[in-house]
Amino acid sequence: MDTLFVGIMTKFIVVAFLLLHTSASSPSSSSSSPGAAGMLKQLFQYIDDHQNQFVQRLREWVTVQSNSGDHTKWGEVERILNMTAVRIQEMGGTVDFADVGTHQLPSGETVPLPPVILAEFERDPKKATLCIYGHVDVQPAKMADGWTTDPFNLTEIKGNLYGRGATDNKGPVLAWLHAVESYQEIPVNIKLIIEGLEEVGSYGLLELTRKINDSFFADVDFIVISDNVWATRNPALTYGTRGSSYFFVEVDGPKLDFHSGVYGGSIQEPMSDLIALLGSLLDHTGKILVPGVTDDVAPLTEDERKLYDNISFDLEEMKSVAGVKHFLQDTKEEVLMARWRNPSLSIHGIQGAFSEPGTKTVIPKQVTGKFSIRQVPNMDPPDVERKVKEHLLQVFSTLKSPNRLRVTATVGAKPWVANLKDPQYVAGQRAVREVFGVEPELIREGSTIPIAQNFQEETGKSVMMLPIGGHDDGEHSQNEKINRIPYVSPLNSFEFFLHSR
Amino acid sequence: MDTLFVGIMTKFIVVAFLLLHTSASSPSSSSSSPGAAGMLKQLFQYIDDHQNQFVQRLREWVTVQSNSGDHTKWGEVERILNMTAVRIQEMGGTVDFADVGTHQLPSGETVPLPPVILAEFERDPKKATLCIYGHVDVQPAKMADGWTTDPFNLTEIKGNLYGRGATDNKGPVLAWLHAVESYQEIPVNIKLIIEGLEEVGSYGLLELTRKINDSFFADVDFIVISDNVWATRNPALTYGTRGSSYFFVEVDGPKLDFHSGVYGGSIQEPMSDLIALLGSLLDHTGKILVPGVTDDVAPLTEDERKLYDNISFDLEEMKSVAGVKHFLQDTKEEVLMARWRNPSLSIHGIQGAFSEPGTKTVIPKQVTGKFSIRQVPNMDPPDVERKVKEHLLQVFSTLKSPNRLRVTATVGAKPWVANLKDPQYVAGQRAVREVFGVEPELIREGSTIPIAQNFQEETGKSVMMLPIGGHDDGEHSQNEKINRIPYVSPLNSFEFFLHSR
Repeated sequence: MDTLFVGIMTKFIVVAFLLLHTSASSPSSSSSSPGAAGMLKQLFQYIDDHQNQFVQRLREWVTVQSNSGDHTKWGEVERILNMTAVRIQEMGGTVDFADVGTHQLPSGETVPLPPVILAEFERDPKKATLCIYGHVDVQPAKMADGWTTDPFNLTEIKGNLYGRGATDNKGPVLAWLHAVESYQEIPVNIKLIIEGLEEVGSYGLLELTRKINDSFFADVDFIVISDNVWATRNPALTYGTRGSSYFFVEVDGPKLDFHSGVYGGSIQEPMSDLIALLGSLLDHTGKILVPGVTDDVAPLTEDERKLYDNISFDLEEMKSVAGVKHFLQDTKEEVLMARWRNPSLSIHGIQGAFSEPGTKTVIPKQVTGKFSIRQVPNMDPPDVERKVKEHLLQVFSTLKSPNRLRVTATVGAKPWVANLKDPQYVAGQRAVREVFGVEPELIREGSTIPIAQNFQEETGKSVMMLPIGGHDDGEHSQNEKINRIPYVSPLNSFEFFLHSR
Repeated sequence: MDTLFVGIMTKFIVVAFLLLHTSASSPSSSSSSPGAAGMLKQLFQYIDDHQNQFVQRLREWVTVQSNSGDHTKWGEVERILNMTAVRIQEMGGTVDFADVGTHQLPSGETVPLPPVILAEFERDPKKATLCIYGHVDVQPAKMADGWTTDPFNLTEIKGNLYGRGATDNKGPVLAWLHAVESYQEIPVNIKLIIEGLEEVGSYGLLELTRKINDSFFADVDFIVISDNVWATRNPALTYGTRGSSYFFVEVDGPKLDFHSGVYGGSIQEPMSDLIALLGSLLDHTGKILVPGVTDDVAPLTEDERKLYDNISFDLEEMKSVAGVKHFLQDTKEEVLMARWRNPSLSIHGIQGAFSEPGTKTVIPKQVTGKFSIRQVPNMDPPDVERKVKEHLLQVFSTLKSPNRLRVTATVGAKPWVANLKDPQYVAGQRAVREVFGVEPELIREGSTIPIAQNFQEETGKSVMMLPIGGHDDGEHSQNEKINRIPYVSPLNSFEFFLHSR
């Protein structure tokens, strides 16, 4: 089964970018020409013959614990980048490791950043050039978080391949590579830009994009990103993402952790200061209480509102998937807008306090609260950061605390929204129509893929997000997977499409 | 140096219980008889000859990570109990392992409890019987918490022996055993009751005390506990301890941890519910906001207030030891009362949220906040537990949350206060006077040693707390140690005491 679905995933991309190519280069021409059909037969044969390899590669990649959120794991990030480079070179591509400089940690320590892969395959000036972006770093994962299977040992259960990075984003990156590999003669020129720091905000990638704008990107026509999932069981194109700023609220108090029996009652504890600070951020309705932070949220237009009507989103099903009695909103449209086009604040945890099972009667000397704010047009991360810091300092001043407060922020990725009239989106909608025989859902993504915004702003090229993952893939969660079902339906479409020539 | 101070510690106890014996058995007789002096010379010679062994034993005991707060470490607790039993048997004592039954964990799982050691040495009915209590379990410790040396490898720096359990309570337990070992003919009968669950509230010990009240305790005259430290550089006797209840506030929400980008804004997050709950417990002045919880605090009498005048407590020095700009109170007396005779609430941490370094954009599905309340006469732990639960349920109802709240409490140890007119305290004060040549400071202990209260209430015997550890030993903290300085001054006192015969 697993071998089958990888083939299907790859075939989908093969068809998708063949269609993208034909659609974009000559909008009037039909991709359903005998030539195209013959080429596809040949391609699919190659894919079927190599499925075992494709799955084995995903398994090898998943074993690498390339958790970029912990800089002590950046060695693993470099390892997976090297594996990626070797794969591209084996396929006849050329690879350049771009140095993106250093990064200062919250501790103040400066560390070198893992490089970014810039790759390309032999170029035909007559063909359009497609640049594929992906990332090979992952979120943390451990069995203790509640995984059913080892997150770093790709395991299939009932047609799902479970493993950290299966859908975010190692699986899709490999799918693109397998598609390229499957071609005898590829209809577009291919470039690749693969990074290892997406999960922490793509340090250095923006600067690199500016630096190579006139070289690497000069002849690029389209940039495609497959780093998100469908919203429902229906195929989708994504036209917007939320930005994000990640905040560290450090309260630093006594010299040592103390016994709460010995000092309790005489010391203003960093932990109670921090709880008061975190408690001032949002109310129980999810409303962000930081003054002015939501002032710049773009108003909802009637055209935008209408897009939500077409989305086959089932509120009851989503409740049962999420395992919640109710969401903060009452209607499908409100819930989707809360996730896609409105800001949100999540408190992720506290570092430095007692977090293990059991009991410990400690007064932690220093605690760091962590939260992030998802941002939407037209919010501006530096402005949000300033307002959050002012707010926390103001609240802290009311605590009359002898402790020291330090608020720092990382990431600060801008939100992104595309123009649906852009030729690539027109082509993309046509591709979905031809491959799946249905209208694509035009969706937004609540999570943050900063480079969509950055690529569009810096290169001025057409950027499209083409989701491959299923709506229930659980990126960043326990039991992250790639589900075969979203790829099975395309297969039928392909066959219909081929035999109906 | 380290060998020297262990000798001094042991000599102090040798003298102390010789004096306790003589003081208690015949208040008029002086312990400073030639016989006593001769016996002491002989004893001290034995101690000097065996110091290397004494230090080595403490080192061996410290290597055992008997962290009772984590029930998965109870195997290590049993290991240190067995080492203790072997030591007593080697000294000619008899050991009985008392079964104290099972314990239900917050998870609902039931686990067997480590046994309690009941030991005694050959009995002379003409002598008074002294029962020594101690515990050999410890608080958690790891380098990452900020230890300078390996907490489980006893390390001396400048006359301090650093290691988890050095002062709380493995060191003092060994000191008593070494004192007993040093005697040829011991002036009192010795019984020992040694447990391994003190740090979690001595599960089962209260029931055991009741069970053996008419057997093991029948012929006991005095119970002595050395499980606390002096308040200052001056010797002290302790006449009160605070009680404690440890609370788990579990908020259980979605089925899985979610990506804050995907679900943020649509879900009422368990973490924000928990922050609101924890934020409702106390204000920035340290005042406990749970209605009615402090109603039963005993009023301060004039006699009690006077005791605080004699305590050579230096507020400025304590600030620099603690590393705080100021305490929650302004005067020495207020700070001591806040630590000793008034209740306090400390928030220790959160389990289930992201607590590691770096960034993780997660919405934790289930989080458990942990806090404890130190209690004083005449607060009643079950009453406090009821009021805390009512308060948290009331606050939670205002959050209109779809999540599930579960509040559980463990420990529930009662506060304790002794009668200073008790013969053992009179004897104790005389012993300090004779050994140290100064008036003892009569102090209370902010931390919780539940068995003092339990022994006194259940057995009706005279219970005294005789601190051995230094005021800056840092029990429960990083770099816990036993400091030689508090034991150096007694040495001079001993010599003065001996030569002045």
